[in-house]
Amino acid sequence: MKKFASLCFALASTAAIADEGMWQPHQLPTIAEKLVDAGLKLDPKSLTDLTGFPMGAIVSLGGCTASFVSDKGLVATNHHCVYGSVQYNSTEENNLLKNGFLAKSFKEELPATPGSRIYVTEEITPVTDIIQAALSSDMTGSQRFNSIDLSSKSLVAECESDSKYRCSVVNFHGGLEYYLFKQLTIRDVRLVHAPASSIGKYGGDIDNWMWPRHTGDYGFYRAYVGKDGQPADYSVENVPYEPKHHLKVNKSSVDENDYIMVLGYPGRTNRYRTALEVENQFTWTYPQAKAYREEIIDIIHENSAAGSDVRIKYESTLAGLANYAKNYGSMVESYNKGTTLVRKQSLESELTQWINASTKRQAKYGDALKGLNGLIKQDQQNQARDLILGYMNYSKMLSTATRLHRLSLENKKPNVERKRGYQERDIAGFEQSMKAVNRRYDAQMDQKILLAMFKHYIQLPKSQRLASLDKFFNIEQNTNEQQLQAKLAKMYQATTLNDQDTRLAWMNKTPVDFSKSNDPFIQLAVDTYEERKHIEESNEELSGNIQSFRPKYMEALIAYFNAKDLPVYADANSTLRVTYGNVKGYSPQDGLVATPFTTLEGIVRKDTGIAPFDAPKKELALIKNKQYGEYAKKELGSVPVNYLGTLDITGGNSGSPTLNDKAEFVGLVFDGVYESIIGDWDYDTKLNRSIHVDIKYMLWVMEHVDGATNLIEEMDIVE
Amino acid sequence: MKKFASLCFALASTAAIADEGMWQPHQLPTIAEKLVDAGLKLDPKSLTDLTGFPMGAIVSLGGCTASFVSDKGLVATNHHCVYGSVQYNSTEENNLLKNGFLAKSFKEELPATPGSRIYVTEEITPVTDIIQAALSSDMTGSQRFNSIDLSSKSLVAECESDSKYRCSVVNFHGGLEYYLFKQLTIRDVRLVHAPASSIGKYGGDIDNWMWPRHTGDYGFYRAYVGKDGQPADYSVENVPYEPKHHLKVNKSSVDENDYIMVLGYPGRTNRYRTALEVENQFTWTYPQAKAYREEIIDIIHENSAAGSDVRIKYESTLAGLANYAKNYGSMVESYNKGTTLVRKQSLESELTQWINASTKRQAKYGDALKGLNGLIKQDQQNQARDLILGYMNYSKMLSTATRLHRLSLENKKPNVERKRGYQERDIAGFEQSMKAVNRRYDAQMDQKILLAMFKHYIQLPKSQRLASLDKFFNIEQNTNEQQLQAKLAKMYQATTLNDQDTRLAWMNKTPVDFSKSNDPFIQLAVDTYEERKHIEESNEELSGNIQSFRPKYMEALIAYFNAKDLPVYADANSTLRVTYGNVKGYSPQDGLVATPFTTLEGIVRKDTGIAPFDAPKKELALIKNKQYGEYAKKELGSVPVNYLGTLDITGGNSGSPTLNDKAEFVGLVFDGVYESIIGDWDYDTKLNRSIHVDIKYMLWVMEHVDGATNLIEEMDIVE
Repeated sequence: MKKFASLCFALASTAAIADEGMWQPHQLPTIAEKLVDAGLKLDPKSLTDLTGFPMGAIVSLGGCTASFVSDKGLVATNHHCVYGSVQYNSTEENNLLKNGFLAKSFKEELPATPGSRIYVTEEITPVTDIIQAALSSDMTGSQRFNSIDLSSKSLVAECESDSKYRCSVVNFHGGLEYYLFKQLTIRDVRLVHAPASSIGKYGGDIDNWMWPRHTGDYGFYRAYVGKDGQPADYSVENVPYEPKHHLKVNKSSVDENDYIMVLGYPGRTNRYRTALEVENQFTWTYPQAKAYREEIIDIIHENSAAGSDVRIKYESTLAGLANYAKNYGSMVESYNKGTTLVRKQSLESELTQWINASTKRQAKYGDALKGLNGLIKQDQQNQARDLILGYMNYSKMLSTATRLHRLSLENKKPNVERKRGYQERDIAGFEQSMKAVNRRYDAQMDQKILLAMFKHYIQLPKSQRLASLDKFFNIEQNTNEQQLQAKLAKMYQATTLNDQDTRLAWMNKTPVDFSKSNDPFIQLAVDTYEERKHIEESNEELSGNIQSFRPKYMEALIAYFNAKDLPVYADANSTLRVTYGNVKGYSPQDGLVATPFTTLEGIVRKDTGIAPFDAPKKELALIKNKQYGEYAKKELGSVPVNYLGTLDITGGNSGSPTLNDKAEFVGLVFDGVYESIIGDWDYDTKLNRSIHVDIKYMLWVMEHVDGATNLIEEMDIVE
Repeated sequence: MKKFASLCFALASTAAIADEGMWQPHQLPTIAEKLVDAGLKLDPKSLTDLTGFPMGAIVSLGGCTASFVSDKGLVATNHHCVYGSVQYNSTEENNLLKNGFLAKSFKEELPATPGSRIYVTEEITPVTDIIQAALSSDMTGSQRFNSIDLSSKSLVAECESDSKYRCSVVNFHGGLEYYLFKQLTIRDVRLVHAPASSIGKYGGDIDNWMWPRHTGDYGFYRAYVGKDGQPADYSVENVPYEPKHHLKVNKSSVDENDYIMVLGYPGRTNRYRTALEVENQFTWTYPQAKAYREEIIDIIHENSAAGSDVRIKYESTLAGLANYAKNYGSMVESYNKGTTLVRKQSLESELTQWINASTKRQAKYGDALKGLNGLIKQDQQNQARDLILGYMNYSKMLSTATRLHRLSLENKKPNVERKRGYQERDIAGFEQSMKAVNRRYDAQMDQKILLAMFKHYIQLPKSQRLASLDKFFNIEQNTNEQQLQAKLAKMYQATTLNDQDTRLAWMNKTPVDFSKSNDPFIQLAVDTYEERKHIEESNEELSGNIQSFRPKYMEALIAYFNAKDLPVYADANSTLRVTYGNVKGYSPQDGLVATPFTTLEGIVRKDTGIAPFDAPKKELALIKNKQYGEYAKKELGSVPVNYLGTLDITGGNSGSPTLNDKAEFVGLVFDGVYESIIGDWDYDTKLNRSIHVDIKYMLWVMEHVDGATNLIEEMDIVE
């Protein structure tokens, strides 16, 4: 068997380690033997063909993964990935979040939230040479940053000359490698089915990241295209997209120890960060960000009644805030109990020894770690300011005004020179986001959130504050809350940015128009622009400098691992990856074993009738009557609900299909267990477990609870 | 195999049920076959000999169980059973609670908390005939109550004519049977050893009733007697008691599925209560009592800093309050999720059917349940008043004053007519409790607690309030908190009952002295006496009436079970019982399995350095270095800390030795798991688990952490 490496595992015991690794498709042939040993029945090479089976059936929703499960463009993903669209179509009278939604025919399907896209990756091209050809060693940080930026944008522009495609240049190993991703972009996305939140979000924030789990975290979209089969904006004339490949659904599901794999778009991991970065992240960034998130959550809870229109508007924001507040808290807890930092430090000293053992290596890599750390320290000096400025953007009025103003400035430049997010390719999405504001906005709430964050901002030392922002708000030594509150109240009263047409109109105005505006939020954006721009440029200079050290550090690290015959996978970066492993329990605590499957009866046992443990009465009655239909699993004597896997996943994998050894759909990955949250930084074979919705539970609920027989009939179900 | 019954099990599935039952020693021959089948290597009959082995080694501490583990009177029990004595000897400077305590020689042993006793049960005599001979069917409730009371007291007085003994008449099956218990009473009890609370109470209230568990809940007393070998008051001249029997300690401990048994004094269960009582208890009494307890806990927390002298005084009170607040909460939770009431109701209708199927049975039992329930309803009418009056007694000044005043009144009667608690036999204990007041009393705290409870009292409807109490406090329609507070503040300023000598002096005064007193708490006691006495008499009348129905109901129930060939054990009533079963895990939740052993490594995994997860540094270092000594268990690769058993236990079993199939000491039972707390009302074979300290952990800590080698040498250790 081949061996594998990551910085985490290399430091673990000498036991053989499986299941760790988010592999790029092109790497799979190098680990083919291992895949076959693990149980894969397909030729591993078939997984490298992006437009073949099964890769062609895997799509990105931008932030979530999904897959085609019928030849009519039916897309399966997580409930929490379609949540925004369910919310978008919900009202107090017709609360789809609460009741669930099922289109019994194509006609009844509802538009997904504006800006929803389905991305099908068709090509991945290495472009490292092109990027590097434009760089020279005597560049300043800014020059380096801008060169990479320009090269990337040029590549993207060329790639997107066919307007069906969305392209991106992504760096791997901190800039050691670059790849150009070309994705077919489907723009007409419709909501087909989502169970009631009391199934799809069963257990809510309490069970989030937890095992045992009983969540039916699935939902369905459908991809639509023009009559010509090409991507098109929403139109009643559009027809369902017919993908070249879709997954078969195996209703036999899986057993303990079975081979499973997940193909998807994991968002971000940090397994190769330096000890300095790790320590700062866990002792400063996460605790601080968690505190801000919890404060905003409290504000929303205190100022909106459950089920009210206002609360419905903020449900999605709440979910995101709570999810990561818990995530950060757990990571800090695991970090404090664990040995991540110590092992990281050992690795760095081993690496340094290895480098120093050869003059050639010393010449090549000798300054990498030290140089990198020097720049990181520089970055940390402004982190308190940058973090609070970021959280102030939870105010929709503030972020809308600064974005609109920035758009007017960028519009003056040639397209390719514009900042990311403000290019022609971004305008449709920009417009969608401007249209969507009011669905997630309440003036009182926005104001309270901004005030709360402002109160933290004014605690910064003066040298860290923005003089222009201070001036705008008359912030002096002892500015009190009443003054701020009064000023903000006036601003919210006066602003017209809460009006959709006004926002859209501002998209076409000039910087001069902005300068003349009486809208207080626009004035704020204009007055603080220069200073924010200066901060942005300083950060780019720093980023450009880091770009000259991190690739070297990663090159050294990879060389060190390769010298030990250990292949290395890159940190997750929202690009297509493969992870594989087995269905398997674990021991979360001494004296406790998590078994790999939960069952329907566990829902009844957890249920209190009070959200988030308030399964539909119909479901509870079916369970009590043991009406399992054809979905019971013999060994369990019931229908499995969720199962545990050893897969190496992270956010972005949400909605990824879980595939069996023949690449048949056997469930959806939707979460990891509490003990594996720190896996984004440090993988632990014993504790790292993914949580999956069992296909049997999906089909059982669809058939027996929701009557979604039309969808069951549409899919290719095998056993 | 024989079959067994309780109301719970009879209603369970038809599967064979083991492990349920708290058997009286004399019942054991009737279940001998089952005991041997389960693995007992002794003759079951040997367990009926109270003065033989092993029963002779089992003692009661009054509220806890314990056992002799050396021929020098060394007594093993739980840390939480010696907790009061550790606290009694603790000061801010020499905090034994925190640091633990070890006497390296007999001389260093410290007096246990005043009033500590060791009771050795020597005789159990059936006295039902004697009690019943004095009863007639035409008695009023009060007459019946007083007749039983007088018969009991006469039997006790006769039995206690030898002053070495403490005797009691206890009713079984609600008065269907009575037994006279004769217990040798050792009055000189000394503290020998207790680990640090960070071992003995590891996990604190958070882990209380929980699994996985890592608590070293053990401690040691020693029994002392006069040089003549007879019980004696404390004296430096006293010598260690030499018991006829003591337990051998088997350091091999136990394996999964091994036979274990617990001999001890379980306090109280309610497995045969009527549906009416069950429903009221879970929907009214427990929720209300929990709320009062939590309120008092909050008051103590808010008004004393951790580690302060005041907090140390209230630690024991806090522990008791928290323990049962959690207990009640859990029971209510289990009740709400479970089917206890429904099954109870079914049993009652089955029983009624069975009774009605025979005219003879109908004549004998026909009115039992209905009559009983009528009286229970009557009792429930005053429960709000009775509960709050009870919780007001958490005020030491209030309870001290009423008890002292009552003593002066009882002293005027012939001894045998005095109320229980005020007879000559009770005076030593009464005096000890008066001496102990200041160790658990702070005036400010006492006042705040009383005020808080008073605020609930004044919410009662006027018909439920005590006119004399209202008058004393000038309580009218809209009495406000300020008035009460001012009155109480004056009372606490004026009272001298906070002085030990004053309290002791009041023990010898007459009712007239009390009437003339200026002490406001004494005045309160005097002014309210008549009304409280009236309530007491009403309650006795009711109790006497219940005594004429409940035995009949229980007789019917037992006859019904016996008709199905099912022997019946009585509810726990603080008398000696035997429970047996196996070392065994369970599934606390769907998707989770509790394995039967925890290990040392679990302590490190739980430890945060912050109480209650702050194991001694020395212990953590030993674990990290795998210094297991001779106590590791092969299958676990470590030292076991706690284990799970299927034994049927409840409060009062605390400190009971856990015995193997040869009645060797293999640990101490100290708790039950969360899911089995409702076991006091409704036993569930799948979820009912006892938690034991593993003897291996006790010996490992004693040898490696605390250096208690003198005790290890003193015990008979076998393997």
